[in-house]
Amino acid sequence: MNYPQFIQDQITAIQQQVGRGRAINAVSGGVDSSVVTALAHRALGSQLKTIFVENALMREGEPQRVAGIFAKLGIPVEIIDARAAFLGALKGLTDPEQKRQAITDTFYRDVFVSEVKRSGAKFLFHGTILTDIEETVAGIKRQHNILTQLGINTEEAYGYQVVEPLKTLRKDGVREVGRLLGLPDDVVRRIPFPGPALAARIVGEVTEARLTTVRAATAIVEEELAGTGAFQYLAVLLNDYATGIRNGKREFGQIIVVRCIDSVDAREATVRELSWDTLHRLTRRITSIPGVNRCLYDLTPKPPATVEYV
Amino acid sequence: MNYPQFIQDQITAIQQQVGRGRAINAVSGGVDSSVVTALAHRALGSQLKTIFVENALMREGEPQRVAGIFAKLGIPVEIIDARAAFLGALKGLTDPEQKRQAITDTFYRDVFVSEVKRSGAKFLFHGTILTDIEETVAGIKRQHNILTQLGINTEEAYGYQVVEPLKTLRKDGVREVGRLLGLPDDVVRRIPFPGPALAARIVGEVTEARLTTVRAATAIVEEELAGTGAFQYLAVLLNDYATGIRNGKREFGQIIVVRCIDSVDAREATVRELSWDTLHRLTRRITSIPGVNRCLYDLTPKPPATVEYV
Repeated sequence: MNYPQFIQDQITAIQQQVGRGRAINAVSGGVDSSVVTALAHRALGSQLKTIFVENALMREGEPQRVAGIFAKLGIPVEIIDARAAFLGALKGLTDPEQKRQAITDTFYRDVFVSEVKRSGAKFLFHGTILTDIEETVAGIKRQHNILTQLGINTEEAYGYQVVEPLKTLRKDGVREVGRLLGLPDDVVRRIPFPGPALAARIVGEVTEARLTTVRAATAIVEEELAGTGAFQYLAVLLNDYATGIRNGKREFGQIIVVRCIDSVDAREATVRELSWDTLHRLTRRITSIPGVNRCLYDLTPKPPATVEYV
Repeated sequence: MNYPQFIQDQITAIQQQVGRGRAINAVSGGVDSSVVTALAHRALGSQLKTIFVENALMREGEPQRVAGIFAKLGIPVEIIDARAAFLGALKGLTDPEQKRQAITDTFYRDVFVSEVKRSGAKFLFHGTILTDIEETVAGIKRQHNILTQLGINTEEAYGYQVVEPLKTLRKDGVREVGRLLGLPDDVVRRIPFPGPALAARIVGEVTEARLTTVRAATAIVEEELAGTGAFQYLAVLLNDYATGIRNGKREFGQIIVVRCIDSVDAREATVRELSWDTLHRLTRRITSIPGVNRCLYDLTPKPPATVEYV
């Protein structure tokens, strides 16, 4: 694909669709939403408002990190603190579908709609890519940002039109477009991170205590595996407990799963054959997290597993 | 330690304690109970009755295999079919302590007591080893066969005296004694297997369907890892489910954990650094078990983890 031409065509299309209207988008710091932010801002300038929703499910220091990156590119990002709304909506839920639905509903109905109203925007930009659409249509993925593909009229339901300029690209194409738009390497080459964020990395109920545990494990995994160049690496907190020994006494401890995969576009994935040095170091650090006494490595390719657990 | 002398001393002690009385023991096919069977039979001959309790929690073909091995040594083993009693007692239980207690109670109160009565035995031989006692006293292990150490009067509670001739040995010593008693290599060098059998390999409820799943995974792991010479290798079925893809559709699948450790005596253990060829082959075979779509490798040494999960 001729990516410079793709960018030019999309800018023209966006300008025609939006006209002199106002647009809004939410950036999560992931590759897709960062690239759509840069692309829509190139097309619309100050007609675009970009927000970052702090949902309590983010990695350590994420809101400030993301806002800082875009500030350097001259793109203002407003941080919306919605932590209490998300934690309240997730309370008591253990079913994966209900958890995702609670996050989607809180995001759109509670947080986003009021931001859209406040901004007066009629156009919402989404970082949907081709793989999202294929997997949602196939019933593999329950992606929250492809409402129109599922036949939901967003103008009726939420009061805005959804614009998805990346929906013909796969991950590698998105990265190329991001590079051409001047996004820094640590954004463009950032490993994928799911929409429901750390909630997708917790099997069972999402609580502040469990978020703290999986956030600590995520930081360790990202630090130890950043140098591998793998497509994606992550930590998952299981709901099961296992027996262990702490200070000479039997205890039930929590279980962290480490996953590290290679993939071109997330449709299929193979497991990275990490060195035993790395695996042992990960285990030592992860079992030092309070309450965690097991570290497992996920050996399963996609298919038959997905990348995430929830 | 002088093991031939140890054996002679134990035989003398056993003969003095039992006199002309009758004794009984249950053999599970593991190293400890097999060695105590051979030792007690050497001391008591036909005064000893040995039973194998088929509790529905065994590996494939285990009762026939064990009875066959001892038949060749001239030691008769009677198989007691108690599957319904164990499955009934485990129904609905998910707490590890309650599960172990249900197995202990079913074994002693329901099955064993009637066998003891039927046999007229006043002496029960147990394969307790030193590590069991240390870990139970330390609160790490809840071992069912060290009742006397816990201050339970078995003569009052169950009507027999417990005899534990291996209680001063660790695993390596038990193997040596077994060899000297003429037990075949595939018994003496058999990897350890827990008292609660496959129930210790199931996190959550123990049902026939879940036993079938973990039994299939156990067979694969034992087949693939027998050649490693590792101290112990096992498969665990978790209670959590994870998302996966089957025939192009999203599904929730079960998770099998593979564990393979090196150890001298089970007090401490390190994780075996299996080859990636082996890990990939295990994963392919395990994710072919109906309902299973994840295979994880446990990276955790003991401590902080134990060998088992339940």
